[in-house]
Amino acid sequence: MHHPEKRSHNTSNLHCQCHVMRLFSLLNKAFNGIPSSSKLLLVFSLSGGGLVAYSESQSTSATNNTEVERLANKKKVVVLGTGWASASFLKDLDISSYDVRVVSPRNYFAFTPLLPSVTCGTVEARSIVEPIRNIVKKKNGEIQFWEAECTKIDAANKKVFCHSNIDANLVGKKEFSLDYDYLVIATGAEVNTFNTPGVVEHCHFLKEVEDAQKIRTSVIDCFEQAILPELTEEERRINLHFVIVGGGPTGVEFAAELHDFIYEDLVKLYPMVRDLVSITLIQSGDHILNTYDSRISSFAEQKFARDGIDVRTGCRVLSVTDKEVNMKIKSTGEYVPLPHGMVVWSTGVTTRPVVKDFMEQIGQGKRRVLATNEWLRVKGREDVYAIGDCATIDQRKVMEDIAAIFKAADKDNSGILNVEEFQDIIDDILIRYPQVDLHLQSEHLSSVTDLLNDPEGNAMKEVDIERFKSALSHVDSQLKSLPATAQVAAQQGTYLSRCFNRWEKCKTQPEGPRRFKGSGRYEFLPFRYKHFGQFAPLGGEQAAAELPGDWVSVGRSTQWLWYSVYASKQVSWRTRVLVISDWTRRFIFGRDSSGI
Amino acid sequence: MHHPEKRSHNTSNLHCQCHVMRLFSLLNKAFNGIPSSSKLLLVFSLSGGGLVAYSESQSTSATNNTEVERLANKKKVVVLGTGWASASFLKDLDISSYDVRVVSPRNYFAFTPLLPSVTCGTVEARSIVEPIRNIVKKKNGEIQFWEAECTKIDAANKKVFCHSNIDANLVGKKEFSLDYDYLVIATGAEVNTFNTPGVVEHCHFLKEVEDAQKIRTSVIDCFEQAILPELTEEERRINLHFVIVGGGPTGVEFAAELHDFIYEDLVKLYPMVRDLVSITLIQSGDHILNTYDSRISSFAEQKFARDGIDVRTGCRVLSVTDKEVNMKIKSTGEYVPLPHGMVVWSTGVTTRPVVKDFMEQIGQGKRRVLATNEWLRVKGREDVYAIGDCATIDQRKVMEDIAAIFKAADKDNSGILNVEEFQDIIDDILIRYPQVDLHLQSEHLSSVTDLLNDPEGNAMKEVDIERFKSALSHVDSQLKSLPATAQVAAQQGTYLSRCFNRWEKCKTQPEGPRRFKGSGRYEFLPFRYKHFGQFAPLGGEQAAAELPGDWVSVGRSTQWLWYSVYASKQVSWRTRVLVISDWTRRFIFGRDSSGI
Repeated sequence: MHHPEKRSHNTSNLHCQCHVMRLFSLLNKAFNGIPSSSKLLLVFSLSGGGLVAYSESQSTSATNNTEVERLANKKKVVVLGTGWASASFLKDLDISSYDVRVVSPRNYFAFTPLLPSVTCGTVEARSIVEPIRNIVKKKNGEIQFWEAECTKIDAANKKVFCHSNIDANLVGKKEFSLDYDYLVIATGAEVNTFNTPGVVEHCHFLKEVEDAQKIRTSVIDCFEQAILPELTEEERRINLHFVIVGGGPTGVEFAAELHDFIYEDLVKLYPMVRDLVSITLIQSGDHILNTYDSRISSFAEQKFARDGIDVRTGCRVLSVTDKEVNMKIKSTGEYVPLPHGMVVWSTGVTTRPVVKDFMEQIGQGKRRVLATNEWLRVKGREDVYAIGDCATIDQRKVMEDIAAIFKAADKDNSGILNVEEFQDIIDDILIRYPQVDLHLQSEHLSSVTDLLNDPEGNAMKEVDIERFKSALSHVDSQLKSLPATAQVAAQQGTYLSRCFNRWEKCKTQPEGPRRFKGSGRYEFLPFRYKHFGQFAPLGGEQAAAELPGDWVSVGRSTQWLWYSVYASKQVSWRTRVLVISDWTRRFIFGRDSSGI
Repeated sequence: MHHPEKRSHNTSNLHCQCHVMRLFSLLNKAFNGIPSSSKLLLVFSLSGGGLVAYSESQSTSATNNTEVERLANKKKVVVLGTGWASASFLKDLDISSYDVRVVSPRNYFAFTPLLPSVTCGTVEARSIVEPIRNIVKKKNGEIQFWEAECTKIDAANKKVFCHSNIDANLVGKKEFSLDYDYLVIATGAEVNTFNTPGVVEHCHFLKEVEDAQKIRTSVIDCFEQAILPELTEEERRINLHFVIVGGGPTGVEFAAELHDFIYEDLVKLYPMVRDLVSITLIQSGDHILNTYDSRISSFAEQKFARDGIDVRTGCRVLSVTDKEVNMKIKSTGEYVPLPHGMVVWSTGVTTRPVVKDFMEQIGQGKRRVLATNEWLRVKGREDVYAIGDCATIDQRKVMEDIAAIFKAADKDNSGILNVEEFQDIIDDILIRYPQVDLHLQSEHLSSVTDLLNDPEGNAMKEVDIERFKSALSHVDSQLKSLPATAQVAAQQGTYLSRCFNRWEKCKTQPEGPRRFKGSGRYEFLPFRYKHFGQFAPLGGEQAAAELPGDWVSVGRSTQWLWYSVYASKQVSWRTRVLVISDWTRRFIFGRDSSGI
């Protein structure tokens, strides 16, 4: 990690660091949706009763020489993507020492966990998007954004090639390339069709905002077609058969939303076909929501059974045509054709071609997913980082380093490790290898030194290298890659921006664990994911939640918890207000069923 | 006009006609957006302090014989379209004696006067639409609606042929036909390109909600393309040149909205191209808004000049390509090419092909627009009505009937009309020929009898047929066809539903004026348009309005008048709440510029 410049403080940020300013900056942050250059003059009364007037000052343009020089010396950071990972990274990044360029085919950030709600109009598409330029607006400089797709990363020449995908007949070259000193890949992943024939042509996906909007129109189309005069009842039934492939959180939430949309709103407008509607959820595993606690999984299955949603577990989809889903029941080997009105495909994600090509270049061609180290740096490159769904952290195994760890711990080079020596480096081990902690939890061990107990459970005062190896031999089995969720991506973005912001400082005062191979410490603490739990909204104002500390919560109150968490997690006050007012509107007026 | 059944009252509507019910029905009407079958239980306190609980009762299904018979005898009314005319007609129609079927390619009603606001996100598309099924929900029966386009009207066989335009791969026959006893054509008109080459391919229109959404995306695309790295300044300028063809109310309002969107919101996110943006408004006439009062027209021109909108009057567009608008300056004959980023075409409307074909069948093939009589019945057909933009009223001329009028008035057959005889039929004349009233106003005559004054202005006691003819000879010059506006269409819809509702009654007690040819009276009063004024929002919280009684109002307060009128005119409480909250949101957060 090489990074020569000293971070220069922007003086305009310093000249009135009083309490009032801090209070204002809090307010300002809270209302970051409000156009900042609109000569905002806020007069507010403090608790003391005084009045303070504040008018936003425009920083003078950088025309003096030192400023120009500083700009020229800035490291070029290119960021690909505007999803959770990228937005979190850019939001917190201090750009006083970086020249940041962002490229993405979407000029907005979307609050993707609400996508299933958009499919049925519970929340409007526009309420969950925020222009990326609003999010990355900075006081002390500018982040440039271009709406284009990165078509190739040239790792050797530190260059990315981009192509604007604006499909209008506008003039000017749509291709351009950017040089980078550091590249942050945050392009997300694409839908995994498992090469199932017909999926791309005949299925809806649920990845982008446009997907959700298309699904909404399509549901209404199915109803409008089903009630046309000349159809047989069988034809009406087929048009009103909604099939969802994939029993993960997205598929389940969509099934629940669709059920509510149909039975709370649509049947009132299309009462004549009420009894002809059916929803089928196809899951290849034995249970839906199988990454969740089994209590949630069975709660969801029971709820869906009551709702009349046909859950088909243990089934694999072989192909999809415009008329049918062809499915195989795994247990019996039987082939079942399901005529449908509409299919939504939601079975997980895979690597994008541009990332795949990059992996070939850097010797990761044989992997399925781009690998980074624990500091989110791409393996094999000094200057490329990857965050969010496009990459996975390749956690170093304890057993790979076991000899080095033993050697580092064995200060007196005696070949024997005593408990004191072990305790000396245990913190560094726990930081460097999070699987150790997970192992302790799963084995219900209260202290790390318990690891060194002999097979009978007696505490050992000393261990040799063989005993040490066998003591830690099961630890690596706890390794598990992180799920491809918004939560993980957002935490990675925030983590990486913190590293970029503290780079200068940490080079001289490293904050990471000691290096067992080599000397000294790592500059940064490795990335550690904090799981805040996960929700599964199940429709009818019912939700299930898995909360930290092995808590499981189901029912109506969980739905309200879901509302409050999702409202608080919005990126701007604008989207927060819109999402809450959408929910309110839905409670009062129901969902809109106009075919637009 | 033939219509045999007696209207039978739905008994379920009668059994508790107390004050409380009426109060509730008012409330219920006010909140007609609320799903009515959701077992709504409202408990509200009356002024007396008592509590009344009301639960909506489901009417029992019509299974007894008289009911079936009644249904079979109902006249079949087919309505084409779901715009202003159709929605107003259906909303007030009493369907107890009509079996009503509605066909339209849009399953929603759109509040079209707010379309220009949708183009720039001042108001969201969904806020101005209401599912037509919500609007036509009736207590005493069902109005059937099918989302399809009428492809042919077969006047001889009283049949319409329809084709569903749902473009999904859904099963079942998309074609169907409907028989009618009465047909109400309310399909509106289509954009008039005047056969200008390239308009259909390269211009945006502003007729449908989808058009407005496309314009919004396209504006953002122009900005995103203009800031790409590899463009020359000239290319950036071209991409940011917005051309509007047509200086009528829609074009002017769109220009104003676009100006506000760009200078209030977009330049903050794209500051680097601020000075490269330009807006050109092309008008073939000498002034923009030339159907308005000249004070409004010049106020608008001055406002646009200040805003930097380039208004090119007296110019005709010869062709449009993906890169250029080719324009001819009428006065000099000079040809001017205008390179553009985007063109919006808004130059008026013309007859749809299906209506044109129908006109051929009924002998109106040589006309430009479908003609109806003053009762909105299509000329040449007993059973077809046409309302809204698809038709025009062919007002009977006084001079065509002058002999019959004279004869009817001259009771004693003396060949001389005295003032008393004239006064006797003057009310019928004023009702039957509204142009007489307009003529009196334009000539500043205080009384109708002043018409009979001799050329020197002396009052005449008696006139012969020749004098009578010359007295009324200028009256018909006041004939003017009604503008193609929402206001006209809505009033026509309401008028026609009133006729349908009162048909039985008016057959025995006609309420119309006397027939000068033939005997007796017309069943109904002819349609009379009441002009409530018109607005021209000009951006920057400025608007101009032409109000009844020759009032003209311009400026900021007029914009607020505009807000309140447009809010009050919404078809449902849902859209009213949404539109107002969109305006509020825009004031606080600005318009959204995400490219979705």
